Parts: sequence; structure tokens; C-alpha cells
Amino acid sequence: MAQYIDIRTLNFLLNDIHGLNQLLQLPRFQEHDLESLTMFLDSVKDFSDRELYPCFKEMDEKPAYFEDGKIIVHPQIGTAMKQGGELGLMRLPLTHEEGGLQIPLLIHTAAYAIMEAANNHVPGYLGLTYGAAELILYFGNEELKNKYAPKMLDGEWAGTMCLTEPQAGSSLSDITTSAVPAGDGSFRMKGQKIFISGGDHEYVDNLIHLVLARIEGAPAGTKGISLFVVPKKRLNADNSLSPNDVTTAGDFQKMGQRGYCTSHLIFGEKDDCHGWLVGEAHKGLKYMFQMMNGARIAVGRGGAAIALAAYHASHAYAQERPQGRRVQDSGKKDVTQEPTLIINHPDVRRMLLFQKAVGEGSLSLVFQAARYYDLSVASVDEKDRKKYYLLLELLTPIVKTYPTEMGTQSVSNGVQVLGGYGYCSEYILQQYYRDIRIFPIYEGTTGIQSIDLLGRKMMMENGTASRLLAQEINETIQAALTHDDFKKYAKTLGANLKLTADVMDFLGGFAKNGEFERYLSDATIFMEFLGTIVVGWQWLKMAVEAKNALLAGKTDYPESFYESKIHTMKFYFKYEMPKTTSLAETLMSEEVLTVVEEKEGAWLND
Amino acid sequence: MAQYIDIRTLNFLLNDIHGLNQLLQLPRFQEHDLESLTMFLDSVKDFSDRELYPCFKEMDEKPAYFEDGKIIVHPQIGTAMKQGGELGLMRLPLTHEEGGLQIPLLIHTAAYAIMEAANNHVPGYLGLTYGAAELILYFGNEELKNKYAPKMLDGEWAGTMCLTEPQAGSSLSDITTSAVPAGDGSFRMKGQKIFISGGDHEYVDNLIHLVLARIEGAPAGTKGISLFVVPKKRLNADNSLSPNDVTTAGDFQKMGQRGYCTSHLIFGEKDDCHGWLVGEAHKGLKYMFQMMNGARIAVGRGGAAIALAAYHASHAYAQERPQGRRVQDSGKKDVTQEPTLIINHPDVRRMLLFQKAVGEGSLSLVFQAARYYDLSVASVDEKDRKKYYLLLELLTPIVKTYPTEMGTQSVSNGVQVLGGYGYCSEYILQQYYRDIRIFPIYEGTTGIQSIDLLGRKMMMENGTASRLLAQEINETIQAALTHDDFKKYAKTLGANLKLTADVMDFLGGFAKNGEFERYLSDATIFMEFLGTIVVGWQWLKMAVEAKNALLAGKTDYPESFYESKIHTMKFYFKYEMPKTTSLAETLMSEEVLTVVEEKEGAWLND
Repeated sequence: MAQYIDIRTLNFLLNDIHGLNQLLQLPRFQEHDLESLTMFLDSVKDFSDRELYPCFKEMDEKPAYFEDGKIIVHPQIGTAMKQGGELGLMRLPLTHEEGGLQIPLLIHTAAYAIMEAANNHVPGYLGLTYGAAELILYFGNEELKNKYAPKMLDGEWAGTMCLTEPQAGSSLSDITTSAVPAGDGSFRMKGQKIFISGGDHEYVDNLIHLVLARIEGAPAGTKGISLFVVPKKRLNADNSLSPNDVTTAGDFQKMGQRGYCTSHLIFGEKDDCHGWLVGEAHKGLKYMFQMMNGARIAVGRGGAAIALAAYHASHAYAQERPQGRRVQDSGKKDVTQEPTLIINHPDVRRMLLFQKAVGEGSLSLVFQAARYYDLSVASVDEKDRKKYYLLLELLTPIVKTYPTEMGTQSVSNGVQVLGGYGYCSEYILQQYYRDIRIFPIYEGTTGIQSIDLLGRKMMMENGTASRLLAQEINETIQAALTHDDFKKYAKTLGANLKLTADVMDFLGGFAKNGEFERYLSDATIFMEFLGTIVVGWQWLKMAVEAKNALLAGKTDYPESFYESKIHTMKFYFKYEMPKTTSLAETLMSEEVLTVVEEKEGAWLND
Repeated sequence: MAQYIDIRTLNFLLNDIHGLNQLLQLPRFQEHDLESLTMFLDSVKDFSDRELYPCFKEMDEKPAYFEDGKIIVHPQIGTAMKQGGELGLMRLPLTHEEGGLQIPLLIHTAAYAIMEAANNHVPGYLGLTYGAAELILYFGNEELKNKYAPKMLDGEWAGTMCLTEPQAGSSLSDITTSAVPAGDGSFRMKGQKIFISGGDHEYVDNLIHLVLARIEGAPAGTKGISLFVVPKKRLNADNSLSPNDVTTAGDFQKMGQRGYCTSHLIFGEKDDCHGWLVGEAHKGLKYMFQMMNGARIAVGRGGAAIALAAYHASHAYAQERPQGRRVQDSGKKDVTQEPTLIINHPDVRRMLLFQKAVGEGSLSLVFQAARYYDLSVASVDEKDRKKYYLLLELLTPIVKTYPTEMGTQSVSNGVQVLGGYGYCSEYILQQYYRDIRIFPIYEGTTGIQSIDLLGRKMMMENGTASRLLAQEINETIQAALTHDDFKKYAKTLGANLKLTADVMDFLGGFAKNGEFERYLSDATIFMEFLGTIVVGWQWLKMAVEAKNALLAGKTDYPESFYESKIHTMKFYFKYEMPKTTSLAETLMSEEVLTVVEEKEGAWLND
């Protein structure tokens, strides 16, 4: 079987970079040890090798489809739900009280990254079920918890999140799905939801939809949105199931992720769809963001995983394919020599290093967020919990965006490594290329994440979160400064922190003047800017650890492993980090070219 | 029908920017006038509306396929070959003597861009036929010319170019297809060719393959390659056709451009395949580059055309789709307002302007090359012909690369404008996204173009071509300096010329030291650098013309049309041009990270 993820790098990130062992000292995780968790990840890898990777290409070639009111998905989805339940994949980070295994989210994240690298069409079915169950467990009443969560954690029932409506798109203020009290404690639901991932299939006994809707008479906008549990089938008193008037109207056919169904659901076509309120009325969006934030990290994780899988596929090809000859010092090529492997051509090597830098850098960033999550729930000191919560909030939009945007570019480089073959259906690269392209759109597009980052997170609590992040980055800079040959990279990263402050000063001026649309107009450029810096930080952190390991003569991994991390850091600082200079120039330009003035009308026509 | 190209912009580029009228003063083109050529382009647009655009999506959904030794393509290919022949699309730039219409390549380029924007799967069948006929007409003997060219120019027979072999890929030195004198003036051909675009279909009576092969005993490498005409069917003395032992072994299934077949051909399986030498033995590669250079410009043109078609599709959606509300000066959104059209959101507008800047900038660049071609063949003074030949040679790799690499990114932005819908098969954006991805690979990948640019073209005739290009750019800078409000853009472009000289000085040091592999190792970064500058030049040129038109009160187009060109230039200089600073930093970095040293071995494994 082809390699789709490097478990050594995964372990290096977990243990050496993101301090898994240190997390395990916290009371919440005390019962676990490194050995058992490593064994658990091995079993996830085995499961992925056995059940996920072999059907990956087939899921693309035989996509999910809609027929006779049902969505037909690949039968392996059934196997994955069942075995995933047995492996505990829907209960890892939950507490024992919630029915969980109380394992760090860092391990959950690693487990899902392995699965997603093997086959990105499947893990969403499991991950959404976990996320939906978590939401019920956090905010639902005892009845909802007892009725739905256990079977979801077992993988017998699946969960979904139902936000988008045809007319509203990303604008949740405009949701019109309605909920009217039915008199028996439930609500009658009516409305349509689109783009519902994993929204219908026959490999679970029931689907539990978490639906945003508006209770009759609720205020306009997001303040009037409530959250409901709406099962596909109602659970009767005798534990039998009967239909709940949830109709599947279609399955969106997509360019990629074709094994992962994307449903159009209609609630209450016959006025007989019942939903149960989660928590308080009108607070639905807040609750949903619990799941949404997790989903955003999951999307970043998926982007990183696909980028890594594509890297390994391109790398394997480049190591086997002879073609052309290296340029000699004479400037000529010696055609009497045997062709060289293409990995020896500088441009191919550059593309591979770019893929490696983006893929591993992204995974490290995702793990950083998972670590912050764990510290935000498991730190003993409340102050620490608050600190890591703020860091997590700040990183979340970046974690959603960098791995998906740069991952898309990195997979494109992966296609290019194979030349014409990369474009052919016979090779897997073109599938990764199509699959990953949805990730910058899922769960809030890059534009939306960027407005969240610049408009909300950077300003949050008077900029506390961004100051905390700067402190974290400064710790890495200090560590790097202890090595003479790393000083220049440390200084570059430091200069970028200063540049970030300059950019924020410049943009802040608009916010202070009340020019909020102008303030936010280049938010996506700011995202690219800060994302580049934050991943540079991850690389410097990896390089410092690798350097320390080499100096200490550590033998967890071969020397070449550590050297390769240092080399890739240098690559990142030569080829990626300089981009911040240009992005800052754009961000601090006085010209306003995208904020529409009345008089401009629709000149873009011309 | 949806708009896929803006004919006004096309005309603006032809007439106001690239001096079509001035070209028509040259003796070669004297018999044509603007009016007749404009009418001709109108008829190409009608043809594209009628015959190409309507079947575009269907060609993707019902791709070309291989069955019983044949490739089955969409029947509309037959219509296009026939009507294309009638319209003269295979004979435009050829001289009357050659059977052509002696029309500027600029017009040929515009005609094909229109067709490619309508349906990029079809024009290749026509364009390759024209290119193959041209090659025979330039270098073949009278017999070959008379036998093959007329029917190709009519579209009764089609042409292909057969370079790539399975074991050799892009490395033409390693071609092994053999040619042995048959004793009757022909050669017996034997070998396999892959990735042959338009390589087989039943809508022409014959296919004329131009095949690179090695005559028995020829020297190794590219110096031993000869060019042959190898028809699918041999023409008998009585004008009947009989099989020539050219077998179709398969059709590569691809991620996109699925209506454009990509064949695997076997020559001489039964030792009965005859080919006829074109020109002299061992000079095949030189001849093929006549066709190849044209094909490279054609690939850039196709990239520009797809980018433009995607722009129009995204723009149309953004003008119709209401979603969300603009941020007010209070920093809030008023949810009681009706949703705004998404084109009014700054980030959507930024993406659309990026698409417009890349699409129109690329088309202008492609037209610039076509103009240089016309001046290189039609200038009265030999010195001028030489000058424009050198400029064309220098621009060709950039013309192949910028529109395809940046076009790919721009179509990705086009997908993003539509959000989730952009990823759905129902919408056309995902098809453009898949289609355009082959363009950075076709006819020499980006890496190969970049080595051609930095390794050959920049140095050509002691750097004469690059000095000529700097002169051309300086003319635009001088013109821009006459407008006060353009001075800063003129200065930026000037500073970039200086920066280019600095980069070449730095890199030149390696070449002088005989470190050629190092010299070329970042060629692709240099390509991105110079491509960005050259398209910035095109935009400044457009803006200066638009400004002059506004000041002169010209009414060829509405004021908003001219203003939009100026606005897009400003956009390019704010968002794209700053990238050169970072790219130069990378190019002038002392670190060498992609040139393999022996000792490094395969550390990329780690």
C-alpha cells in the first residue's frame, strides 16, 4: 500500500512539539499514558489501512447519489460507522460522565488526520456524529442526552449539522426554517436545508439532525435563532422508530469528495416533523458554534491531511520516475548518462519541499490548536484555561484557512510533480486536487474566516489574544536564539511580529474612524499574512526541537529525520516567509479599491 | 446565453493597445481592413455561440473514450472541423502562397481566444491541424506540401504533434521511436507516442501525425532527432486511402478537458507504418519548435480564455445573488435591510477584480506576443524583423506560463465567489477549474518554460532580448509619467526593471562560476517574478490608453469602460505588483536548498 502519512512525523509533532506527555500530567487525562495512546493511534492506522484507503478511489469513481427519495452511499460507510464506534472514535475527548474516554483532543485530532489522509470521504460521517453528540451533551437536557447521545457515540445513529438554507447561504441571519410549539414539549419544524454533509444514508438506523430554526415570533437576525434536535425517525416509548417527516430531496453532485454525500433536506413537508429545543430559545447560534468551532478545526485538519497524502504520493512518484539529466557545470547535459530520478531536479525538489512545508506545517498548526483546546478545558488553574481558550479562539480561523488554502496550492504542486500523469484519472493526485478544493469553502469560507480573524479575534478583549499569541511566538524566538545558526530565522520571525503590529496600527486607524467596511476590506490578505507567520513559527519550533535532539544525541528518529525538519524550516523561511513583506505592503496601501461607492455603480461590468 | 468573453475588451486590446491598424499598414496585411477583420471576429463569435458554447458542459459529462481500437469523441467535433475549415480558421496567418489568408496572427489569436472561452475542448482539434499544416508548409518538400496541406487547411484532414513517449516524458533526448529507410523514399516507423492531443477520431477522413523519431544510426540526444509526416492512412496514387499501421491503443482519461481526446498511438506494430522525412535528417527538433512555439502561445491563450470565461461566470453570479449585508460605519449589520448582492462585499469584489486583472492582463500579454510575431514576419526592415523575433522568443515562455499558472489561481477564486455552489457539478465554475489545470503542464511544464526563460532567453545574444523588452516597458513608463496621477505606478514599474537587473546580476554570478544547476534552481520563482512585472506593464499600458481616451473624450466605449481599466490597473499594482519584492528576496537568498548534494541522499524521505 502507498504511504499516505508519516507516523514518525505525527509522533514527533505530538510528543516533541506539542507536549503530549505534559498534557497527560493534567488530572483530566491522568489515567492515560503515552504507550496506550500510541497503541490506539496504531490501531487507527491499521483500521485506515484496512477499511479506508483501499476504497478511496472507488468512492470517487462511484459517487453517492440520490434515488427514490434516498441517498445511496458506498457500503464501506456502514463498516466505518460500526468499526469507528467500536474503536471509540465518536467519544475520545468527551468526559467519562458524558460517556467519553477523556482522551486529549490532540489524540482525537491525530486519529482523524490519519483517517483523512487515507480517505477524506469517510471521516466526516464519524466526525459530525461526534460533534452533534457533543453538542447535545453540552447543552441538551437530560432527556435529549439520554435519548440520543449513547447511540451516536456507538455509531449506531449518525449526526449532522443543518445550518445553510437556499436563500440564505452563509448569512445565518436570514434563516427561515420555522419551529412552532406542538403543545407536547416538542416543536413542529418546517423548512429546507441544503449542503448537509452526511445528511442521509442507510447504514445507520437513525440520523440526528441539529437544526437552526426560528421559533414563531422570534426577533430578526441571529438573535432569534434556536437550536433543535430533529431526528430522521422519532423514538417511540417502546424504543421503536417511526418516520419524522424529514424528506431527502436530493444529493448535490460535486467536483470532489464524491463519496461524502451533500444532501438537500426538507423538514415538515407533511406538517409532521417534530424537533426538540436544545438549551434556551434564541441561543441556538451560540450553541451551534460549539460544534462549528470544532468543525472548523476539523476542516483545517482535513486540509492538512489531504496535503500530506498528496505529498507522499508525489514524493513516491518522484523517487521512482527517471527522466532527463541534471545540468552539469558546463551548462550542458550528458545524454549518454542514464536519466536521473526526477526528485534530483531542483524544481521538482522545490515543489516537493513546498508540499512538505505546507503539509507538515499545517498539521503542526492544527495540533497547536488541539493542544490549546485541551489546555483550555483541562488546565487546573482557571487563568490558564482562559488564556488557552483565547489562544484557541484566535487560532481557529487561521487553522481553518491556512491548511485549506495553502493545502490546495500544495496539492496543485503535487499534480505538477507528475506532469501529464498528474492530470490523468489513473493517478491519485487529480483526486486529491478535486477533493481538497471544497475545504476553503466548508464551514465558513476563507472570506468569512478572515473577517472573523481581523474583525473579532484580533480585537477580542482589547487584543489580549493577539498579545498572548505574540508571547507564545516569542518563546520560540528565544529558544531559536540560543543556536547561532538559527539566529537569522529567529530575527526574521521577530521582525514579522513587529510588522504585524505595524499592520494592525495602520488598519486600526480605520476601525477607530468608524470605517469598518474599509477596515475589513483586506481581511483575506491579512489572513494570508498572519497565517504565513504562524506557520513559520511552527516550523521554527520544529527546527529548534530537531536541533536540540541532534545536539543531545537523541535517537528516537534517525539523524536524517531531524535534519530534514531543519532543512524544511530553512526552505519555508527562504520561499514562504518573504511573502509577508509584500502582503504587508498591500495591507498598508492607502488605496481603497474594493469598497463600493454609490457612484461606482456596477462598473465591474466593464 | 451566458457571457463568456467581452468583445469590447477584445477590440480595445486589438485596436487601442496592440495597434492592429498599424499592423494593417504593412505590405503583408495591406489587403485587409479593420472593418472586414472585425466582421470576421463577429462571425467567429457567432460560430462559438452556436456550435461551441452549447455543447461545452455535455463534452465534460460525456467524455471522449476508447472502444474497439477507436476513440469516440463528441459529434460536434465533426461540425467544428467542417465549419472551422469553411470559416478559414486553419489558414488565417499563412501567406497566399501557402494557401492562407495572410491575416495577422493577432486576429488568429483573437479568434481562437473567443472559441476557447466558449468551449476549450474543441479549438485544439483545429489549432493543431493549422500548426501541423504550417510545419509541413514551412519545412516539407513540394510533394508533402501538395499532398497534405490543402486538405488540412480545409479541415477535411486533421493534424497532430507526436513528441512524448512513455519512457521519456518531457526529455526529448530519450526518444526511441525509430525510422528505417524503406527504399522507396519513405521510412518504416516504429514506436509509441503518448499524450497525443486530438490523436484519433472519426470526424475527419485522415489524421496527419508529425512525429519525432530517430533514423537508424543517428547520434544520441536531441541532435539525432528527425521529423516525419506519418499519416493514419496512406494516400494512394488514385487518391484513395489505405491503412498505414497506426494503431490507437487508448485514450487517457483526465480530470478535465474531457472532450479533447488524449491518445496513446502505436506506430508500426505490423512493420507497415510509413513516414516521410520533413526537411533534413537530424533537424527535427528545430522544425518541431516552429509548431511548438506556436503551441506554447496557444496554451497561454487558452489559459487566458478560460480565466476570462470563469470571470464572466463568477461576475454574473455575484451580480444576481443576494446574501448578507454590508458592514455599516457602526461596525454592525442591519438585519432589517434586504440582503445586498454579493458583488458589493469587498472580499467578493476583490476576488472578481483579481479574476479580471489576471484574465484581461493575460489576454493582453498573449496579444503582445502575437503582435511581435506579426512584426517579426511582416516588418519591412530586416532589423525590425530580428528585433521582434527576439522579443517574441523572450516572451514565449512567459506567455505560456503566466496565463496558465495565474489563470488556475484566478479560476479558483472564481469557484470561491460562488461558495458551495462553485463546487457543485450543476455550476460551470468547477469545470473551468478542472479544465485549466492541464494548461501549466501542456507543451512544456512551468518548470521547463522557466528554465527556457532564465537559461536561454534571458541570455540570448548577450541579453539583447531582455534589453529590448526593457526598452518596450520603458516606453510605457514614459507615457505613464505624462499623467500626474499615474506617476507612482510608472515609478513602481521602473523600480521593478531595476530589481530585475539586480536579480540577474546576483544569479549571473552563479552562471559565471559555472554553477549552472544553482543558476537555474529557482528559475520558476524567476518566472513568477518576471511574469508579474510583464503583466503589470500590460496593465499600465491599458490604463494609459484609457486615460488618454477619457481626456480626449473618445466615445468608442462608455466612460465606465475606460475607468474600469484604470481601476483594474490600480488593483493590480496594489495586490499583485508588490509580490515582486518577496520573490526577489527569495531569488537573491544565499541559501541553496533544492540542489542535491551527494551526501544528502534521499533525506526528503524524512
